[in-house]
Amino acid sequence: MSDSKPYRDLIEHWKKLSAVRTSASLLEWDQQTHMPPGGAAYRGEQMATLASIAHEMTIDTRVGEWLAECEADIDLISDAGSDSAANLREIRRAYDHATKLPAELVNEMARAQSAAFVAWEKAKGANDYAIFKPHLQTMIDLNRRQAECFGWSDDGEPWDALADLYEAGMTAKMVEGVFTPLREQLVPLIDRLLSTGKDVRGTFDDVAIPRDAQMRFVRMVSDRLGFDYQRGRIDLAPHPFCSGTHCHDVRLTTRFQDTVLTDGLGSTMHESGHGMYEQNLPADKIGTPAGHAVGLSIHESQSRLWENHVGRSLAFWRWAQPKLSEYFGDAFANHTAEDGYASCNAVQRSLIRVEADEVTYHMHIMIRFELERLMLAGELSAEDVPEAWNARYREYLGIDVPSDARGCMQDVHWSYGSMGYFPTYTLGSLYAAQFFATAQNELGDTDAMFAAGNFAPLKDWLTEKIYSVGHLYDSETLCERVTGSKLSAEPFMQHIRGKLLPLYGLN
Amino acid sequence: MSDSKPYRDLIEHWKKLSAVRTSASLLEWDQQTHMPPGGAAYRGEQMATLASIAHEMTIDTRVGEWLAECEADIDLISDAGSDSAANLREIRRAYDHATKLPAELVNEMARAQSAAFVAWEKAKGANDYAIFKPHLQTMIDLNRRQAECFGWSDDGEPWDALADLYEAGMTAKMVEGVFTPLREQLVPLIDRLLSTGKDVRGTFDDVAIPRDAQMRFVRMVSDRLGFDYQRGRIDLAPHPFCSGTHCHDVRLTTRFQDTVLTDGLGSTMHESGHGMYEQNLPADKIGTPAGHAVGLSIHESQSRLWENHVGRSLAFWRWAQPKLSEYFGDAFANHTAEDGYASCNAVQRSLIRVEADEVTYHMHIMIRFELERLMLAGELSAEDVPEAWNARYREYLGIDVPSDARGCMQDVHWSYGSMGYFPTYTLGSLYAAQFFATAQNELGDTDAMFAAGNFAPLKDWLTEKIYSVGHLYDSETLCERVTGSKLSAEPFMQHIRGKLLPLYGLN
Repeated sequence: MSDSKPYRDLIEHWKKLSAVRTSASLLEWDQQTHMPPGGAAYRGEQMATLASIAHEMTIDTRVGEWLAECEADIDLISDAGSDSAANLREIRRAYDHATKLPAELVNEMARAQSAAFVAWEKAKGANDYAIFKPHLQTMIDLNRRQAECFGWSDDGEPWDALADLYEAGMTAKMVEGVFTPLREQLVPLIDRLLSTGKDVRGTFDDVAIPRDAQMRFVRMVSDRLGFDYQRGRIDLAPHPFCSGTHCHDVRLTTRFQDTVLTDGLGSTMHESGHGMYEQNLPADKIGTPAGHAVGLSIHESQSRLWENHVGRSLAFWRWAQPKLSEYFGDAFANHTAEDGYASCNAVQRSLIRVEADEVTYHMHIMIRFELERLMLAGELSAEDVPEAWNARYREYLGIDVPSDARGCMQDVHWSYGSMGYFPTYTLGSLYAAQFFATAQNELGDTDAMFAAGNFAPLKDWLTEKIYSVGHLYDSETLCERVTGSKLSAEPFMQHIRGKLLPLYGLN
Repeated sequence: MSDSKPYRDLIEHWKKLSAVRTSASLLEWDQQTHMPPGGAAYRGEQMATLASIAHEMTIDTRVGEWLAECEADIDLISDAGSDSAANLREIRRAYDHATKLPAELVNEMARAQSAAFVAWEKAKGANDYAIFKPHLQTMIDLNRRQAECFGWSDDGEPWDALADLYEAGMTAKMVEGVFTPLREQLVPLIDRLLSTGKDVRGTFDDVAIPRDAQMRFVRMVSDRLGFDYQRGRIDLAPHPFCSGTHCHDVRLTTRFQDTVLTDGLGSTMHESGHGMYEQNLPADKIGTPAGHAVGLSIHESQSRLWENHVGRSLAFWRWAQPKLSEYFGDAFANHTAEDGYASCNAVQRSLIRVEADEVTYHMHIMIRFELERLMLAGELSAEDVPEAWNARYREYLGIDVPSDARGCMQDVHWSYGSMGYFPTYTLGSLYAAQFFATAQNELGDTDAMFAAGNFAPLKDWLTEKIYSVGHLYDSETLCERVTGSKLSAEPFMQHIRGKLLPLYGLN
């Protein structure tokens, strides 16, 4: 690599910017976990100040100059898999995103978000879509203007421009290409499973268990999976998240119910997947884009791999079930490993995305994707959202939406104008299945390992193939490098069929 | 007040700077309380970045221009007790301090601090002053150069230049003026008390008590004193501190031993005093200097007032002792309120400042003050520090120093080059005594209030007279406004004599 001064200056500047961003991330973690209630208003000021400093650092004219010089330096960009190429690609992306939006539009968006959030809360509480409707229309209009500023490719569409904020290069066509076969197989599969009339859940989720014992239990599990508590911690939060301030300090959060062990456990395994990814990023590239995780889909693939492919396997429950008595006395004395396994794999049609199971979940995502795509193309106005929403819930999930509060107003995202990232959740599941199938091929009998509580081979494999690679490649390239194939819905469908058909007595 | 645009711009800029500083303060709190061990190195990067951003914002040339314009605006500065006058005075002070030091000296100091800290740790561990000596000499030399940069008044001396960093306008002469009569009375008083040969401590501190019960107990006490847990919290930390991120979010920390209730309790009451000051600063002036606490001495006066004048009073123990059974079962069944009171008021000569009692403590401070003053005046070199130290411990405390590790190397401060602020601890005790005497005059029988667990009148009085006033005045002016007199050692001596002579059977 050339000893380029502009490159060194750029990287030094970007590391400083990362330190500001990760500081803001700690403030956010604190806000969700430890901040006393009175602190909220001024915490907003602190966050806004750090965000504005980070923004000013991103659009610094020197960044544009350094980038131009570096991009003309063949030594820095010729090797597409080099740190310098990855750094320049990602800094360019961030710089373009930040500089392409005029300040007036940013301000208009911020004001509209505040108003829309308040209206959404009120509208949802009163189940009165009319209150939210004009704000959603404003959000659609502003997002269309944002998309115009970013631009999209000739064979693309406005949705692509916003999706790129969350996942480099993600396009509606690419998403559609995997979503369509997925939907065509999932809809009849769900019908088949539920037509058995079988309730596999049993009483495992009805067992009352103290929350402090749950915390000790999930801490033990995440430690065993490979989350490093010397470089991380776990706390309670109402909406669990993993805050990756940097690879040496990763904060998991979780939540518990008074019954339903699988809720807190699944949530913890999910966040542990995010956390192990963060902890095993290349430490020597800390603060640079090359040392970051790939976009949201790959991050979500790791949370879902550990939550679904490990935590929802019978092998995992064969290891976990005998441990329950250590933490919960004889509360689960009458429940087997099979009961735990069945409980966390039950399928049911439901209205609410965040409560959905591993299978029906994706129908919720597809509906949002389709609606956002239409909204951003100017083909669906706020006026017509509820009808379009309800029609799809009937078609894809066979369920009647009884109210807009539990329908198109259930999620907060549109109130703050976020459009374009819901698909990363489903893509995460698909990537997870494809990665895991490859891991099984290469590692051998993972079930035997899990049943023995031996998760290290899987974690080491993921570390080598994905975590330690950082952000050298985009999601699609990484997927091909790791699995030898482009992303497809097939491994996911095989995983789901292989697990659920037997569970529901089908074949 | 004039509607001055430069003033508005300056204040807006300063509020942004405050948001950065208070964000850094949260990172520091987290580092001491929750951060996993692995996070330390990168946390240093984050702190350094925020510090450098805050420094750049402080020395921004616009700050100098705004200040010059505002200081020429009679409407802003004519009323010495106005917000604008206070804001301009304090911003000027910060700007001058930050701009007067050349960058090379700052960098040289930073490098020297790192090296000196490492050497100090090693030297202290090995009890080998020779290892630390050259580093201390470097620190003396660098501090003398810093003092030259800041400057001091014609009748002053180098120590004043550094002391002003911690307490506006504090001078060696002013400190000497109160320290001399204090020492002249304390030395014989300590002799008299200890010549009785009486051990008042008893067995109160030998009672084994669970740490979680101690936490519940001190939380109840601090809540009762008036610390607001809706706008604050308490956590464990190895070296307790109070981190005032802002008045709506104040973080106390404390520590516990397996016995010695009065250690954790005293520490909590001390930090609660700091915390109540922060919580009751004027909320509408948040982020501006006028809304800050006055310098370190007044802050320390509040921690010591609650720790010593409340927590070490017999009246407090009459309220607290009957509560002990609620938290500790029958552990204290054989101990009276008088036992608790005696235990936390025992006097003994000791080598270590941070373990010293309310009386002998000040001798430790005076010794450091005298030595720093000589070092900065160029009259004491690192070579001669141990001898000068040991001679004073013999003279003032009647104690032989057995090793430099427990002598002149006991405190960390000189290793990072801090000189000029030790006296604020003793000044804090003196201010506390003078404020409390005034409060007693105005409120009536505070003992009856304390014995009934009624601390609100004192807290309300302090809020009105001190907390809500923010930083409109410097310490000396505030003292005169609140007590009608200049600071004097007399109220402290009366407090100490009134308490200790009877306790030791003297009069």
